[in-house]
Amino acid sequence: MPEGAHAEARPCVAAIGLGAMGLPMALRLVEKFPVVVFDTADDRLQRALAAGAVAAASPAAAASDAQVVLLAVRDQAQMESALFAADGVAAGLRAGGTVILTSTIGPAAVRSFAERLAEHGILVVDAPLSGGPVRAGNGDLLVLVGASDEALAATRPVLDQLASTLTIVGSAAGDGQVFKTINQLLAGVHIAAAAEAIALARGLGLDPQTVIAALSQGAGSSFMFADRGPRMLEAYGDGAEVKSRLDIFVKDMGIVTEVARQAHVAVPLAAAAEQLYLIAESAGLGDHDDSSVVTVLSPRGGTASAALSA
Amino acid sequence: MPEGAHAEARPCVAAIGLGAMGLPMALRLVEKFPVVVFDTADDRLQRALAAGAVAAASPAAAASDAQVVLLAVRDQAQMESALFAADGVAAGLRAGGTVILTSTIGPAAVRSFAERLAEHGILVVDAPLSGGPVRAGNGDLLVLVGASDEALAATRPVLDQLASTLTIVGSAAGDGQVFKTINQLLAGVHIAAAAEAIALARGLGLDPQTVIAALSQGAGSSFMFADRGPRMLEAYGDGAEVKSRLDIFVKDMGIVTEVARQAHVAVPLAAAAEQLYLIAESAGLGDHDDSSVVTVLSPRGGTASAALSA
Repeated sequence: MPEGAHAEARPCVAAIGLGAMGLPMALRLVEKFPVVVFDTADDRLQRALAAGAVAAASPAAAASDAQVVLLAVRDQAQMESALFAADGVAAGLRAGGTVILTSTIGPAAVRSFAERLAEHGILVVDAPLSGGPVRAGNGDLLVLVGASDEALAATRPVLDQLASTLTIVGSAAGDGQVFKTINQLLAGVHIAAAAEAIALARGLGLDPQTVIAALSQGAGSSFMFADRGPRMLEAYGDGAEVKSRLDIFVKDMGIVTEVARQAHVAVPLAAAAEQLYLIAESAGLGDHDDSSVVTVLSPRGGTASAALSA
Repeated sequence: MPEGAHAEARPCVAAIGLGAMGLPMALRLVEKFPVVVFDTADDRLQRALAAGAVAAASPAAAASDAQVVLLAVRDQAQMESALFAADGVAAGLRAGGTVILTSTIGPAAVRSFAERLAEHGILVVDAPLSGGPVRAGNGDLLVLVGASDEALAATRPVLDQLASTLTIVGSAAGDGQVFKTINQLLAGVHIAAAAEAIALARGLGLDPQTVIAALSQGAGSSFMFADRGPRMLEAYGDGAEVKSRLDIFVKDMGIVTEVARQAHVAVPLAAAAEQLYLIAESAGLGDHDDSSVVTVLSPRGGTASAALSA
C-alpha cells in the first residue's frame, strides 16, 4: 500500500507487532480508534485489515500519523529493531508522542529504551501485560503500568480499552517490568508445579482430570493449575493448540533469575523452573504451548514407572 | 476424670489429637455428636471440655464407647502410637467400628495401618484434609476420601459436619493420601514461590503489600500467594501467630519427594521446595508459621543487596 494511503484517516494508534498478544489487542483497539498496523507476517496483517485497521510499510510509517504507538513484540532484540532501526518508531513518531511498551523484556532494557526515546522527545509507558490472548481480545488484561502522569494521561483511553485491571505500580518506565518480573516468577513456577502434579498423577496411575477437579478449589489451587492443567492433558494429543509459546517462559524465567541475581536474592524454585523450560526447549518444544512442559516430566505413552512395572 | 464418668453419655465419636486441626474439628463435632476426646496437652483438652466434650484417659478409653474414631495427629509415629500402643485405639474400639485417619502420612503408611486395623475388624476411612484450622472450625474443609462404601456410610454424618467439599477419590485406604500428596506438592511449591516473590520484591525495594495486591488477581495468583503473602509480611514482626507449622511442610514435602521417587517421576521444584523448608527448619523455624520460610530468602533488616549497596 502506498505510503500516503492512510494519511486521510488521521490514525491515532499505531500497533506494531501482531503476534499472540498484539493481534487481539489491535482488533480490540480498532473498535474504538483509528489503527495503523505493522507486522511482517502477512496472515496476521490480513486479519487486522479485515477488522478495519490500515497497514503501514514500516514501524516508522505506522508511527508517523499516530499519537500513541502500541508495541507488542517478542523480546528485547525485536523491540530494539522496532524502535531504533532506520525505519523504526523513533524515526517516524513526532516529538510529544507516546510509546506503550507491552513486552516483557526486564526493567533494565525498558529503562534504557526510555532514555533513548526521551532524546527524541518521545514518552514511554511501561505496560507489561498479564492474562493471555483470549483476555487480550476481551479487553480483560491485567496491565502493570510504570509511567509519568503525562505519559499515562496521553495513553489512558487506549490502556482502558485493553485492561480490566490497570494497576499503576510506579511513575517511571521499568517499574511495570519489575512487577511483571515478580508475576512471571509466580506464573512460571506455578506452570512447572502443575506439570509436576500432573506428571505425578500419571505416574501413580491416577486420572489427571479427577486430580484437577479435586484439587483446583483447595489450598493447592492456582490460576495456572486451573488454566494449564487441562491444556497439559491436551498436550499429549496431536496438534494441541498453541495459546502461549513455551519459549516465552524460557525468556521470562531468564529475566526473573537475572533480576534476582542482580538483587542478590536466591530464587531456587524459579531457577529450577527455568532449567525445566530450557530442557523442554531443547526437546523441541519451544514453539509448542507452554503446557507441553509436562511431557518432559511424563512422556507420552507412559512414565518410566509404568515401563519398569511392565 | 474417672474412667467410667462418660459412660452414660454413650458417645458416638472419639476425637484423638486436639492440635491445630484436631481441636477445631472436635469443637465442630460437639455441636452435633456426643464426643469423647483424648490429648496429652491439658490446655487443648480444657477447651474441648468447655465446649461439651468428655475426656478420656487414653485413646483406648476414648474409643471404647465410640462407633467412629477421628484421628488428627502430627505424623506417622504419633499415629502408630495412637492406634497400636497398649492403650491405643485398636485395643479399645469394638469390631465393626470405623477410624477416620485425617493426618497426612503418605499412602504406604495408611495402607499398612488399614491392613493391621482390619485384623481387629476395624474399618478405615483415609480422609486427609486441606484447608487449615479456620476452615476446620467452620466445617469448610476439603476432604479427600479413600474408603469402602461400608466405611464411608458409617462415617458420612461425621465427615459432612467437617467438610464443605467431600471428594471421594478412591475406594481404598491410601487413595486419599495419594491425592493429598499431589495437593501438598502444589501447596508446598506455591508457598515457596510466594516466599521467592516477596523476597524478590523486598530485594528490589518494592512495597510487598502493593505487590500482593497487584498480582494476587492475575495469572500469577494462587490460594497460597493470597493466603500466605500477607502472613509473610507479618513473619518479620515479633510474635507472629502460628497458624500452620513450618515443620508440617518438612514432613509433607518429604512424603511428596518419596512418593515421586517410588513412581520414578522427577519433581525438581518440589525437591527445591523441600530443601528450602529443611533450611528453614535448621534455622530454628520448625515451630514457626510456615510463612516464615520467607525470612530465609530475605532476612529481617534487609537483604544482602541492601547491605551491599549501603
